[in-house]
Amino acid sequence: MLKFGTGGWRAIIGDEFIRTNIIKVAQSLAVLMKREKVDHHGIVIGYDKRFLSDKASRWIAEVFAGNGVAVNFIEKVSPTPLIMYTVKSFACDYGLAVTASHNPADYNGIKIFTKGGKDADLMVTAKLESIIEELHEEDILTMPFEEGIKRGIIRTVSPFNDYVDTIISMIDVEKIRNRELKVLVDPMYGVSKAALQTVLITVRCEVDVINDRHDTRFGGRMPSPTKETLGKLRDMVREGNYDIGIGTDGDADRLGIIDEEGTYVTSNDIMSLLYYYLLKYKGWRGPVVRNISTTHLLDKIAEDFGQRCYEVPVGFKHISSKMTETGAIIGGESSGGLTIKGHIKGKDGIFAAALLVEMISVTGKRIHEMLTHLQEKYGSFYMHEENLALTAEKELELKERLFEKKELPEEFYPVEKVSYEDGMKIYYKNGGWIVARFSGTEKLLRVFVEMPTRREAKKLAENFLEHYGIYN
Amino acid sequence: MLKFGTGGWRAIIGDEFIRTNIIKVAQSLAVLMKREKVDHHGIVIGYDKRFLSDKASRWIAEVFAGNGVAVNFIEKVSPTPLIMYTVKSFACDYGLAVTASHNPADYNGIKIFTKGGKDADLMVTAKLESIIEELHEEDILTMPFEEGIKRGIIRTVSPFNDYVDTIISMIDVEKIRNRELKVLVDPMYGVSKAALQTVLITVRCEVDVINDRHDTRFGGRMPSPTKETLGKLRDMVREGNYDIGIGTDGDADRLGIIDEEGTYVTSNDIMSLLYYYLLKYKGWRGPVVRNISTTHLLDKIAEDFGQRCYEVPVGFKHISSKMTETGAIIGGESSGGLTIKGHIKGKDGIFAAALLVEMISVTGKRIHEMLTHLQEKYGSFYMHEENLALTAEKELELKERLFEKKELPEEFYPVEKVSYEDGMKIYYKNGGWIVARFSGTEKLLRVFVEMPTRREAKKLAENFLEHYGIYN
Amino acid sequence: MLKFGTGGWRAIIGDEFIRTNIIKVAQSLAVLMKREKVDHHGIVIGYDKRFLSDKASRWIAEVFAGNGVAVNFIEKVSPTPLIMYTVKSFACDYGLAVTASHNPADYNGIKIFTKGGKDADLMVTAKLESIIEELHEEDILTMPFEEGIKRGIIRTVSPFNDYVDTIISMIDVEKIRNRELKVLVDPMYGVSKAALQTVLITVRCEVDVINDRHDTRFGGRMPSPTKETLGKLRDMVREGNYDIGIGTDGDADRLGIIDEEGTYVTSNDIMSLLYYYLLKYKGWRGPVVRNISTTHLLDKIAEDFGQRCYEVPVGFKHISSKMTETGAIIGGESSGGLTIKGHIKGKDGIFAAALLVEMISVTGKRIHEMLTHLQEKYGSFYMHEENLALTAEKELELKERLFEKKELPEEFYPVEKVSYEDGMKIYYKNGGWIVARFSGTEKLLRVFVEMPTRREAKKLAENFLEHYGIYN
Amino acid sequence: MLKFGTGGWRAIIGDEFIRTNIIKVAQSLAVLMKREKVDHHGIVIGYDKRFLSDKASRWIAEVFAGNGVAVNFIEKVSPTPLIMYTVKSFACDYGLAVTASHNPADYNGIKIFTKGGKDADLMVTAKLESIIEELHEEDILTMPFEEGIKRGIIRTVSPFNDYVDTIISMIDVEKIRNRELKVLVDPMYGVSKAALQTVLITVRCEVDVINDRHDTRFGGRMPSPTKETLGKLRDMVREGNYDIGIGTDGDADRLGIIDEEGTYVTSNDIMSLLYYYLLKYKGWRGPVVRNISTTHLLDKIAEDFGQRCYEVPVGFKHISSKMTETGAIIGGESSGGLTIKGHIKGKDGIFAAALLVEMISVTGKRIHEMLTHLQEKYGSFYMHEENLALTAEKELELKERLFEKKELPEEFYPVEKVSYEDGMKIYYKNGGWIVARFSGTEKLLRVFVEMPTRREAKKLAENFLEHYGIYN
Repeated sequence: MLKFGTGGWRAIIGDEFIRTNIIKVAQSLAVLMKREKVDHHGIVIGYDKRFLSDKASRWIAEVFAGNGVAVNFIEKVSPTPLIMYTVKSFACDYGLAVTASHNPADYNGIKIFTKGGKDADLMVTAKLESIIEELHEEDILTMPFEEGIKRGIIRTVSPFNDYVDTIISMIDVEKIRNRELKVLVDPMYGVSKAALQTVLITVRCEVDVINDRHDTRFGGRMPSPTKETLGKLRDMVREGNYDIGIGTDGDADRLGIIDEEGTYVTSNDIMSLLYYYLLKYKGWRGPVVRNISTTHLLDKIAEDFGQRCYEVPVGFKHISSKMTETGAIIGGESSGGLTIKGHIKGKDGIFAAALLVEMISVTGKRIHEMLTHLQEKYGSFYMHEENLALTAEKELELKERLFEKKELPEEFYPVEKVSYEDGMKIYYKNGGWIVARFSGTEKLLRVFVEMPTRREAKKLAENFLEHYGIYN
Repeated sequence: MLKFGTGGWRAIIGDEFIRTNIIKVAQSLAVLMKREKVDHHGIVIGYDKRFLSDKASRWIAEVFAGNGVAVNFIEKVSPTPLIMYTVKSFACDYGLAVTASHNPADYNGIKIFTKGGKDADLMVTAKLESIIEELHEEDILTMPFEEGIKRGIIRTVSPFNDYVDTIISMIDVEKIRNRELKVLVDPMYGVSKAALQTVLITVRCEVDVINDRHDTRFGGRMPSPTKETLGKLRDMVREGNYDIGIGTDGDADRLGIIDEEGTYVTSNDIMSLLYYYLLKYKGWRGPVVRNISTTHLLDKIAEDFGQRCYEVPVGFKHISSKMTETGAIIGGESSGGLTIKGHIKGKDGIFAAALLVEMISVTGKRIHEMLTHLQEKYGSFYMHEENLALTAEKELELKERLFEKKELPEEFYPVEKVSYEDGMKIYYKNGGWIVARFSGTEKLLRVFVEMPTRREAKKLAENFLEHYGIYN
Repeated sequence: MLKFGTGGWRAIIGDEFIRTNIIKVAQSLAVLMKREKVDHHGIVIGYDKRFLSDKASRWIAEVFAGNGVAVNFIEKVSPTPLIMYTVKSFACDYGLAVTASHNPADYNGIKIFTKGGKDADLMVTAKLESIIEELHEEDILTMPFEEGIKRGIIRTVSPFNDYVDTIISMIDVEKIRNRELKVLVDPMYGVSKAALQTVLITVRCEVDVINDRHDTRFGGRMPSPTKETLGKLRDMVREGNYDIGIGTDGDADRLGIIDEEGTYVTSNDIMSLLYYYLLKYKGWRGPVVRNISTTHLLDKIAEDFGQRCYEVPVGFKHISSKMTETGAIIGGESSGGLTIKGHIKGKDGIFAAALLVEMISVTGKRIHEMLTHLQEKYGSFYMHEENLALTAEKELELKERLFEKKELPEEFYPVEKVSYEDGMKIYYKNGGWIVARFSGTEKLLRVFVEMPTRREAKKLAENFLEHYGIYN
Repeated sequence: MLKFGTGGWRAIIGDEFIRTNIIKVAQSLAVLMKREKVDHHGIVIGYDKRFLSDKASRWIAEVFAGNGVAVNFIEKVSPTPLIMYTVKSFACDYGLAVTASHNPADYNGIKIFTKGGKDADLMVTAKLESIIEELHEEDILTMPFEEGIKRGIIRTVSPFNDYVDTIISMIDVEKIRNRELKVLVDPMYGVSKAALQTVLITVRCEVDVINDRHDTRFGGRMPSPTKETLGKLRDMVREGNYDIGIGTDGDADRLGIIDEEGTYVTSNDIMSLLYYYLLKYKGWRGPVVRNISTTHLLDKIAEDFGQRCYEVPVGFKHISSKMTETGAIIGGESSGGLTIKGHIKGKDGIFAAALLVEMISVTGKRIHEMLTHLQEKYGSFYMHEENLALTAEKELELKERLFEKKELPEEFYPVEKVSYEDGMKIYYKNGGWIVARFSGTEKLLRVFVEMPTRREAKKLAENFLEHYGIYN
């Protein structure tokens, strides 16, 4: 009944996200750790600013303490990457965060992390689900939090300074120090402020912060940094002459950027900028990993520097694995998360932001200029996206036509190849492509198109939908 | 297991305030209404701004609809007195509000109302508790909200204008209109703003509002209008030269007042002012009802105008009943709630506030002046209060000494009489008194003392605690 | 040296807007009033929320008191239309407001009003300028404010309730009361809040207010309600599901509207909506007056109802005069001010807003729908505007080519007629037109084009600029 | 006519603080610099966030440029100590700040600095006054700002990083880093935020900031950190469990502190804490300098460590001079300013705050504990202050009685000695004292009393006022 998605377990507070379920999830992980004989290494527990996150993290700690598993309890609200970093730096086998990431405010959830600060993969969550199924209420062991503290089985830890030091050590402080950059930060009422501000102020940026009070309603918006939700950041960057605006999602693993002109920068562009920057200005060498619905501009950049771009299915775990396998220096997705070699194996919006600020300082070019430069050099790439809710009937029909009959839409562009590794992806000879895949977590068909211009991308998407009889 | 207190059912969100319990409460009331054959009169459902209140009120409506009980669903967040007023004006037998009143932000709850807009009494809640005990999950009938709307069994209602009109009709608009009063309102992130502002602006006060954004954390404070929580209101009234500052609790049934000097006015003083005002300036005649731990200044005022003051045990239901019985014109408690004859039978912070504004306008005296006047006329009354957490052992000991052995503390003041109707109350010959009672809802001993001066009151309380070996 | 523009005298605070100049302006008006023998009728003085407005208004009152002219001093910060209304209702011959309207925050100024609440015309301001030129410092008579109060020559007045009552009396309260409209008000840190909120709440709208604290920097923006400055209002109207967003300029004589979709509504559209509404729904009959650079949609509407549209040069005084002359029911300008017959003779953003709210209530259509309706009925009108700073040389050249040689640009559209009454206006046969005129107050050439589509309007403007060798 | 006080020239904006006067002050300093042949060293110009400060600083730069004096123009709003620091670090002979320090919002002014970052003394300002008296309008030379920039005679400078580095270099970073202190900063809408936040975040405090938007009204309060104006800081420190609350005045040369209990700490206590800390924990040795109306607790501390406390008349210049003369390690006044050896010679609220944070970290004791410790060790010192506005007549009478007749009040305490160096100061044998002096800048008699208890201090002040027939 209790199901984990790609980002962990998520549910509506008061409905399914309730104490009885929360402690079940905790107990299942304690059981798994015992089975794997890693329970004596202890666990890391952290939480974000959502409603019930603080209470829930304590309920969870009480279960681990009850099971005799040592708890490293991060006392302050923390970004998910900081919690993942702690799993890595404490050399724990498991960790977890109470967070529902960028979900709406009435949700909360639990993200599970494994060795090295990595999102738990399907194998792990499947095991947890099956343990939960067999759990009886009386199997759940708990010890009151205060008693756990007294006995020392729960200890509060403060990894903040370490995490921040690590990020600072990875960027070029001297180059940034004298640029007097003006940065506007929008934590979207989430948890990035303390870490991001500390990093940026230490390197002497002038930092202002908006949307930072503790608001469990996230100001009435989704805590997801999109073009729509970052309106205030956009206006203020323009009016206040900031060099960059940085928005982070609810748990700070993803980011959205507003450039110095007040324009929203897509995740595709952020990744491309960073990969280009690492290669060209920092002299790094190595491949890049992207999922199937992320821009092919990355392929062009890789090629230009004699590197390779690897394509993997959707899901950050695929990115992480392929990076380890290939020694890639950067990996990410068009949905907004990315990671850099040498840091944690998960997404980190704070580190990515710091790197962008370094890029502006080192290159002496602001983001808009850099993007224009990339466009001039590698041509223009425009991505269009459609998310379509389908009836169960239509879904069945489409799956048959797309994946069994392998029916293709009629197209104007010569096709280079078609792949069915994750949904259907058609590669066109002009470098453009279209992806159609069914979402794992929501009942949606997602269609992504990349073409040299906005018009072509939209036109191709429309043709596709029309061909299969899908209407918005 | 599920227990109702004096203010309804309250529990921690995600712990006990969860969907499975919420719909049980709803089902139990539906069952009761069917037993009493009043289900065909329908029910009124309203909710406040707390976390989960909107969702919970819909879950509840789904149960009543599933049981075939017509639902009058108040679509906007509403003050409790407005919901009670709607129960009265719609002539329903029952109504309910999703609210935890002035409890901390992690609580939510359900208040049940009966005919005429009255808090459900013990008889009703005892019946509900026993129905709940026998309920099986499969007994709970629900119908999706949207379907309920479509079928017409759920209809959304807008009693706002009626409620506001009623309050305006009960105050002297012309007298207030030309006084250009400056009023500062502090809804404490709760629900009073719309109604209070509409009433006050209609009578042409200049109104400013603080602490009004939708914040389910209530700005980190208890949404209870006390001297401690109204600090900002106090500062701003003083700095902004307001004539009065009005704070209301989370669901606006109670109020706290800051006078024009920036001083917090106690509930005892508010009640005394209003009773005096009704008698002296509006020419009303009739008794007053107060509980045992409310100021005896009311008795003095009553006496001066040839009226009587009735004393009842703690609990607003006792106030309401005695008022009906005696035709009292005002009734209230030192804990902050009061009601006036002719309006709903429950507490209404909005109406009380409007009446105070009328008082300032009609008398031409501001609150501080009026209080000084009362003091000069009837002498000085100072109340001191102690709330003491006890061990179970100490509680037993005290109950024995106080109520069985009827041991009295040694006192300096000649005793007039001792009463054990609700806890122990000693009446002194000088007009002072002391009350010691065990709280029904919390594990506390409450001690109230009233004496002519602060020093005497504190001294008496200290002696009492020392005598019985109680230490803070 | 001291020069009045169309909106009165304006200057930079601390530079030219300084006490010595301010009291000169006051003295000159006192002299004029004496010459005209109207000094015994007294004067009305009001002020807005700008830096120095309160002090300056007192310095001015001290001059009138020193000259023996009775001062009606409006004690609270006030909208300009309220001050004009007071000049009318007190039957004074003159009044003035300390305000720089929608100018940047470092400006302040003085607006002079004449009988009936009208902006002083050129004749009056020319007289004042010439009196000022001959004034010696020792001619300026003053009396300390407090002494003026004591002697009764300065009295504080409170016309707020009267003004608000008048507006309420002119709108259909009953129709609005039950529509439960949600209105978001943006005073742009100016003076509209109290009046606008009182009107709207009295008619039972649900009102929220943004940008209202006392901020003499106007939040860093121009207090002028344009598409650019109302970004926050736009976002919040969309996110909060408001029926209308109302922005008013610094002194509340002009307004900007955001419709229920979050789209900025131009002043041309506002005027057209109101004229259509008055004719069609309120059954009024009468002409409309607009200036040369205001939409001809008004002409179409007038024609449809058998009425006339009068065209006048730029400047609100021309609107007022022509309205009096023709009995027009509405008059206004594309720059954002309008007035309705029967009210004051100047612009009133508060009354216009109230009328729009009435329109929504009475028609049951929201603004976007109404505009679509007008477009379907009368065709589409799109206005494009360019403001160009010129060198003195270029200005001379252009004036010669435009007004002396009467050179026309080459055009694609057949020309109907050309007028030189105020700048140059070319009327095309398709109903479109272009106006080129030099601003009186700023060193700018203003070009306005109206055509059926955006593309045509922009194209025509571009051609015009190219033809005359003007570059942005 | 134009008069300098102890804090420079101050006047009401629009009244006397106007361009014509501002450029006179600038011209007079240019003349002085030429006379002293230091004009070729250039000048430093900075400004704060007050209304007109930015414009005025440009007007001033235009005068120096017009006079051929090189201008180092600090482009961003800056704390006064940062500007003084720049005068020192650039080795300029003169510098100035456009600021009115902690004066009300309708004031602005100019502070003049001399070599080494020192407040100009009386000799300098007297010279300026006499030059101004003889200035003719035509003597004032100006060059447009943009031209000055183009010609290089005006250059913009950024001393921010240097200033911040210097402060950081003077505190013990490692000791603070791991204490995870929570600090709440209240810049009072002034200029301390950037510097204070950068220092504190660099040493890894958790910093929150209130009252920071650009508000030229200072939120309606005096930007002076007193018990009355820091109400919000006090409340929030208590509610948010901060370790310390730091308020700085309008130009950040003075500070006010709220301790971890939410109690306001007087300037006397701040100085005593810091002196004790430097001696006891940092092992510094050297005297302390205080003015006559600053606590004698400093004398006790000095004595305990074998050091001396020097007493000087009121005025920070006396503090600075005596410190240079005696090699004192700290100097300050009960009115809120202090400086430490080795830093600039003027007051610096930012550095003082950083040092207090270091003190908490190094000692492991929070402020309240430290104060209790001092009290236990050196006894209790309570200061009471009265500021009395007098008629000219009464002032004359008092001056005669106090300074000519040398009349003493009747006292209960045995007198040790009486001094007339600056006003009258009576030293009592019990260590207490009373000072009566007439303010130089305002028409006030100031009476300061220090005694072991509050009651004694107030009583003594009352007796004094009564004796001389002075009434509040």
